[in-house]
Amino acid sequence: MRWTDGFIAVDWGTTNRRAYRLGARGGVEDRLEDDKGILAVPPGGFPAAVEEIRAALGDRPMLMAGMVGSNRGWEEAPYVPCPAGLPELAAALKWVEPERVAIVPGVCFSVGDAADVMRGEEVQLLGAYAEGLVPGDATICHPGTHNKWVRLEDGRIAAFRTVMTGEMFSLLSKHSILSDMLTGEVAPGAAFDAGVQAGLSGGPLTGELFSVRARVLLGKARREDAASYTSGLLIGTDVRSGIAAAADGPIYVMGRPDLTRLFATALAAAGREAKELEGDEAFLCGARHLAELVQ
Amino acid sequence: MRWTDGFIAVDWGTTNRRAYRLGARGGVEDRLEDDKGILAVPPGGFPAAVEEIRAALGDRPMLMAGMVGSNRGWEEAPYVPCPAGLPELAAALKWVEPERVAIVPGVCFSVGDAADVMRGEEVQLLGAYAEGLVPGDATICHPGTHNKWVRLEDGRIAAFRTVMTGEMFSLLSKHSILSDMLTGEVAPGAAFDAGVQAGLSGGPLTGELFSVRARVLLGKARREDAASYTSGLLIGTDVRSGIAAAADGPIYVMGRPDLTRLFATALAAAGREAKELEGDEAFLCGARHLAELVQ
Repeated sequence: MRWTDGFIAVDWGTTNRRAYRLGARGGVEDRLEDDKGILAVPPGGFPAAVEEIRAALGDRPMLMAGMVGSNRGWEEAPYVPCPAGLPELAAALKWVEPERVAIVPGVCFSVGDAADVMRGEEVQLLGAYAEGLVPGDATICHPGTHNKWVRLEDGRIAAFRTVMTGEMFSLLSKHSILSDMLTGEVAPGAAFDAGVQAGLSGGPLTGELFSVRARVLLGKARREDAASYTSGLLIGTDVRSGIAAAADGPIYVMGRPDLTRLFATALAAAGREAKELEGDEAFLCGARHLAELVQ
Repeated sequence: MRWTDGFIAVDWGTTNRRAYRLGARGGVEDRLEDDKGILAVPPGGFPAAVEEIRAALGDRPMLMAGMVGSNRGWEEAPYVPCPAGLPELAAALKWVEPERVAIVPGVCFSVGDAADVMRGEEVQLLGAYAEGLVPGDATICHPGTHNKWVRLEDGRIAAFRTVMTGEMFSLLSKHSILSDMLTGEVAPGAAFDAGVQAGLSGGPLTGELFSVRARVLLGKARREDAASYTSGLLIGTDVRSGIAAAADGPIYVMGRPDLTRLFATALAAAGREAKELEGDEAFLCGARHLAELVQ
């Protein structure tokens, strides 16, 4: 069976996986989404986990991206250094089954003392460019567990920097002294905006965080606002350093719509234009363009 | 039995407790230290937990400080507002048994939008002043789970600010993507110093943390240095904001010797003189002086 007859694209992350069967013309024919991220796959369990995908979506060539290519995943696909475009990714695919099953490599950035890595976002970033959704020279902010600030040049990932914003919120809400106050829903609004302002102007995060608790204890803030405020604080801090290094022009914010909305709100508060893009859509664009390159 | 015949001083925190039997002249006659912090005491279990202390150290009047006076503790001792000295604490003791068992209140700081609270450190801070270990006007840095930067004026706590440095290191080493790299011992040295420099000069913490991992993955840093580097990064970030608000003169660093050593190292790197003080010793000073005030 050839790639031109359609294939399965898998976005396989740490905590969940999404698989799409794409038809000959690139449309999504069927999909599978579950919480079988790579950490939920036992040692030696990847062949069986891949069979589950085939059982659900059919026997097609398969293109996988994300943490499945890490040293904790199925087979390690070594990082491609910046600058990295779709041709560089295609040339470095890790073929698990010849001509049939490939893992997309991640991308690394290494200049002087700076070091950074990504796995999974590269397909979305370069897919959006290949599809014409972002220009070849652009600043992209990709929120998620680990937010990526990416500089695209000539349609290739030229440089990027990771900010641990999503994971930090998760750590604080699950395990910290703030956890009993961070149970509410995070939503744009006055509390989120106040957090953003504190983050944009702010002292170090570790100095701002405890006051979230103290203000509630002393009756200066409402407990139910603490989650939105803290999210705003983290995102404002993130945006402050992100825009300090960003070129002029709009900032493309790509990812889950609930997250891109929060980042776009914070960017607007910082006086920057934000253009939101759907991450899943960009992933499919990237998978299609990569499949064209391997045929 | 009167306080002048000796008493038991208890420093009862979230995760452990230390109790000392002090003789009529203030010397430590016996002590108890275990991990029965307030979170390890079941609801309604404080009378029994106090009896354990009496069984070990004898039946004496008892002065307790720390989280035992919080809303998660035995009985809540409401915060005393800044400026707070030993007389203000003594006047606001929460008597659980009249004239025999008292809980020291915490201290709160509340000016404009700023809000902060402490419980336990106040006995050490004011004890060190009462004993002549620090002058009446001083900047004190008190590392621990929640580092406190304290301004002492006229021998009273005038203002303070909490930085979540210790808890952040604990969150990162127990629950984050960095946890498998943060298993080593934290010690002064080149890796710690490099982290301090990154923290002193640094971008936001959330932006620096992920690079700890990336540098190891890309072979730019040694895995066994990650814990010291990360500790240095957190402490450097903490010190940067602390000294920005501190008056001229030496900074008194009070607490556990392993922690005060790390903070003193970071302060030296920032060009500030640090004077280290033992926290347990300061606690005993504070307890003795408080006991004099209640006799």
